[in-house]
Amino acid sequence: MSNVSIIGIGKTNVREHWDTSIRHLAWYAIEAALDDAAISKVDSLYVGNMLAGQLSNQNHLGALVADFSGLRGIEAVTVEAADASGGAAVRQAVLAVKSGLVETALVVGVEKITDETGTPVNAALASGLDADFEAIQGLTYIGAGALLMRRYMFEHNVEVADFAGFSVNAHANGASNPMAMFRNRLKPERFAMAPLVADPVSLFDAAPTGDGAAAIIITRTERARDMVPQPVEIAGSAMATDTMGLHDRKDILRLAAAANSASRAMEQAGVTPEEIDLFELHDSFTVMAALSLEASGFAERGQGWQLARDGEIGLDGRIPISTFGGLKARGNPIGATGVFQVVEVAQQLRGQAEANQVDGAKMGMAQNLGTTGATAVTHVLRLS
Amino acid sequence: MSNVSIIGIGKTNVREHWDTSIRHLAWYAIEAALDDAAISKVDSLYVGNMLAGQLSNQNHLGALVADFSGLRGIEAVTVEAADASGGAAVRQAVLAVKSGLVETALVVGVEKITDETGTPVNAALASGLDADFEAIQGLTYIGAGALLMRRYMFEHNVEVADFAGFSVNAHANGASNPMAMFRNRLKPERFAMAPLVADPVSLFDAAPTGDGAAAIIITRTERARDMVPQPVEIAGSAMATDTMGLHDRKDILRLAAAANSASRAMEQAGVTPEEIDLFELHDSFTVMAALSLEASGFAERGQGWQLARDGEIGLDGRIPISTFGGLKARGNPIGATGVFQVVEVAQQLRGQAEANQVDGAKMGMAQNLGTTGATAVTHVLRLS
Repeated sequence: MSNVSIIGIGKTNVREHWDTSIRHLAWYAIEAALDDAAISKVDSLYVGNMLAGQLSNQNHLGALVADFSGLRGIEAVTVEAADASGGAAVRQAVLAVKSGLVETALVVGVEKITDETGTPVNAALASGLDADFEAIQGLTYIGAGALLMRRYMFEHNVEVADFAGFSVNAHANGASNPMAMFRNRLKPERFAMAPLVADPVSLFDAAPTGDGAAAIIITRTERARDMVPQPVEIAGSAMATDTMGLHDRKDILRLAAAANSASRAMEQAGVTPEEIDLFELHDSFTVMAALSLEASGFAERGQGWQLARDGEIGLDGRIPISTFGGLKARGNPIGATGVFQVVEVAQQLRGQAEANQVDGAKMGMAQNLGTTGATAVTHVLRLS
Repeated sequence: MSNVSIIGIGKTNVREHWDTSIRHLAWYAIEAALDDAAISKVDSLYVGNMLAGQLSNQNHLGALVADFSGLRGIEAVTVEAADASGGAAVRQAVLAVKSGLVETALVVGVEKITDETGTPVNAALASGLDADFEAIQGLTYIGAGALLMRRYMFEHNVEVADFAGFSVNAHANGASNPMAMFRNRLKPERFAMAPLVADPVSLFDAAPTGDGAAAIIITRTERARDMVPQPVEIAGSAMATDTMGLHDRKDILRLAAAANSASRAMEQAGVTPEEIDLFELHDSFTVMAALSLEASGFAERGQGWQLARDGEIGLDGRIPISTFGGLKARGNPIGATGVFQVVEVAQQLRGQAEANQVDGAKMGMAQNLGTTGATAVTHVLRLS
């Protein structure tokens, strides 16, 4: 079975793209990835997307995006797992190339939220929760984050202000990323003054949804080495699920799927958390960043927030996270987010992160979560 | 690279399931497939579904169905390609097992249309077309079928009544399938009396949408032989796309994606159309049956309809199609249809089709199309 490497990456910036349709967003990222790989065709396409059916009345994105991107005729499909759709699409592409039936696979994560009609955005986002047992009771995506944060504060005896470090770090990194949605630095003392969105989640705890697309191209590692100067190997790839509803979890502060997928991905790559140089995690809410660090072996239970307090998550810290701003400042283009994470890890390993570079980064990890961690996809990357 | 075989199959009947939710439908089919394979767990789940987000406010079906079906924790994802979602999900499972990273994969195609709220069904179905260039102009799923049928009639000089044989055959086979949506036989003389749905497509040309679920379980062929008495090998698997919009095709009467995927799947299996004993094709409209037969090498261009006229598509004909009623009489549960097709071919090869048995069936093919053939997935099956 072949190893798999990334030979091309591309992305749009994340913002309100009032003037750009979903097919254009996908195409811009694909064009950049094809240029980066210096190729003009691929064998198959995996589109990570959650909301196009509900927000754009557009399903069947595989055929649409292939056609519009000048790749008419290739195998193409949409992969959906709520806000883990992008990571799940990367996972399908890895399986496809490893199968030997597909030589070169393209993944594009794309989401278009601004200026769309159809279902209201918060209702569409809530379709990632259990419709019959959560959403119908009024629970929203942000409300679920609030339940987790409240419980974390209660159980671990921490306060709202203790989460500030995650947002301050994300905004610091976003400030130097020209593709980020928010490029303003956040002063720690401003954090506690933010308006509440869903108590205790404030505007500075919650990542903003945005429009955008990111793409990667992968092929067998031995082939990749002949094609590009710096192929990035996908050394570990794992996906897992947890209960759909929070109410079914024995312990809502343990992200079982994240733990499962992270440990298996690291085992495949033959590394421990200590050897990971940066970690693009799913900071949809500050509490999710803390829980992901704990689930993935970077902190003990209840202590993830301390990494932020102690400055360990910065670009020169023990475990840099959200190095381009994360979901919080780069923005959260839902079904595209997981592909953005992989692109950013690849940029770091290729030494192309510019002002956001983690010095000497040789091993990186990306973890994409669906809603409250009902789905988790983890990839470990290193230079081939 | 391992070959892949089916070790379990299951399905619900197709009808208006007023009393059954989408998770229950999926579970019933999964339970039947697990029982058939005599196993209780699998490594990953691929859900074929198109409409749950729009009709049931429920995305994230991978995690939901895994959880509800007693498979909590496994890798799980939704695969979407309009009404080819089921076939596309089978394709992803095949790639997953062939990759060596997944040992046993479960596929469930599921769709729930009856009694759902949200987007009107015809608008949701139209999301499989190009939203910006087709659906927004008022084109519907059925309207697209009507355009194809009208052009076929014009170019090949045939009349509405010449399509009757497809529906008569489908209803004859549906009549003896206890799981079919329509179990009434159709008299040829009644065909021309049917009310129009979208001129020239009548009620008897168009397949009815219905609720239902079908499931298969696959693993490596060498392992399958030790597990079940009659594993069915997936000897060929291919997927392709065409232009999204009909207006972009140089020749709308040639299903390029169907032709591409069928020829590659047959090549992988090392067979020619003459060696295929039955063909579960995508008869969403009678004209689609004719076009699929032509694209897949069973008839010359413009002559597919003659196979129906001449009785060649019956259970004892040259190329039996829609052997359990097809989309027309078994019913078309959109995102589940492609999995129903594969289950039905497996039943034929295992000699378990009862009154619908094609005598001596050794090699079967299933072809699932997205809308007007913008996506096509073809699988060739034989006893392992």
